[in-house]
Amino acid sequence: MCQLLGMNANTPTDVMFSFTGLATRAHEHKDGFGIGFFEDRGVRVFIDPASARDSAIARLVKTYPIHSRHVIAHIRKATQGRVALENTHPFVRELWGRYWVFAHNGDLKGFCPRLHGAFRPVGDTDSERAFCWLMQELAKAHAGVPDVRELSCTLAELLPELHRHGTFNMLLSNGQALWAHCSTHLHWLVRQHPFTTASLKDEDLRVDFAAATTPADRVAVIATEPLTADEAWTAFRPGELRAFVDGQPLA
Amino acid sequence: MCQLLGMNANTPTDVMFSFTGLATRAHEHKDGFGIGFFEDRGVRVFIDPASARDSAIARLVKTYPIHSRHVIAHIRKATQGRVALENTHPFVRELWGRYWVFAHNGDLKGFCPRLHGAFRPVGDTDSERAFCWLMQELAKAHAGVPDVRELSCTLAELLPELHRHGTFNMLLSNGQALWAHCSTHLHWLVRQHPFTTASLKDEDLRVDFAAATTPADRVAVIATEPLTADEAWTAFRPGELRAFVDGQPLA
Repeated sequence: MCQLLGMNANTPTDVMFSFTGLATRAHEHKDGFGIGFFEDRGVRVFIDPASARDSAIARLVKTYPIHSRHVIAHIRKATQGRVALENTHPFVRELWGRYWVFAHNGDLKGFCPRLHGAFRPVGDTDSERAFCWLMQELAKAHAGVPDVRELSCTLAELLPELHRHGTFNMLLSNGQALWAHCSTHLHWLVRQHPFTTASLKDEDLRVDFAAATTPADRVAVIATEPLTADEAWTAFRPGELRAFVDGQPLA
Repeated sequence: MCQLLGMNANTPTDVMFSFTGLATRAHEHKDGFGIGFFEDRGVRVFIDPASARDSAIARLVKTYPIHSRHVIAHIRKATQGRVALENTHPFVRELWGRYWVFAHNGDLKGFCPRLHGAFRPVGDTDSERAFCWLMQELAKAHAGVPDVRELSCTLAELLPELHRHGTFNMLLSNGQALWAHCSTHLHWLVRQHPFTTASLKDEDLRVDFAAATTPADRVAVIATEPLTADEAWTAFRPGELRAFVDGQPLA
């Protein structure tokens, strides 16, 4: 299984602390890593089929503060598809003049949908196949980019079709919101004023968020397993879908 | 105007020397840079709206050897579209289960084609609009990914439509070949056995290719202006399109 990390904020925020926490877990998840950052409508994605513990690219991501409101990261333990760049999450496609970034944790059995639309997998993972199907079905459901609530309704209709084929923990963003779907393991929290300090669970690293924020800042973090030892993480329920906007879950 | 750099090789080759030469020219082309590397079917793209002279990401690309058979790089001097991540070349789309990477040097006047297909620009450059139109027309011309010669014929039919709107120097790759189209400025050379040394024109850097290659290696380099002082570069003719495969131009 892989591990996911998502970040959604109301102001561009760097993710170095949380990514460092995720990368620490890469000894078990050494088959590649990737991270995508939205900056307005633009997106940059760093992927590497090497482990996030050793990769020079991961080192850059851990030390170079890229400020973003929507981040999706993934460390891979290959289940379907060989260790290769084209099988490394997150995946990106364009739809309606917006980039869509997607990462998946899980394993879909026998999911071979008819892909008759404009989205085809480049690699050979179940994950990219699922993403292409999702994009195809979204393209059929709307004529242009819908608002976040409307899109959440469409996703709520589509995701059970994927979930019934196996484990489907997922993060998706188009730069307007970040959607998280849980099948087995996914947790979230919101950091907001008054900010406190937090310590990574797996590494001796502590951050005082109060020193790096203003009282107006708010950031939601979503991760397969809680990344910090001293914060209150909420577990998703199986089958639960949440949209995060401006650093908090949409009611 | 921007500057382009392309590399096509018969064996995975790093591009640090040539990219260093390109980045030296970024004092005039400071509105962003980008570079895309194919590794088999996968592709990784580094983009930054900062100058290639200062960017931490450019520093990584100059010092970390990523081995690839098809590379497209671009340094930007904005003509159309503000300085922003979504306007930074190269652009990427997926078609027929292959990634396509595109970079453009030039300026198209009044090019507003009807984009009725599956490819829409995310940013607001003439370049991305031209790329989306090109992808749309390729998708109409073939049912699946054609061979390199067939695709070259289709491109030869389509590119004059872009060229007649203004300056259109372009690099395009799908990981099988690298296509270069010249409107005003584009040069190429092939490095092959017996390899010699070469010196960058704009920087005090010299490489002995014989020390880093085998006699079977062959690499074609395409650049807006010759990057080295002591090699024989060939200028493209205006309107010329060339496909490079396995480190040499296709006859």
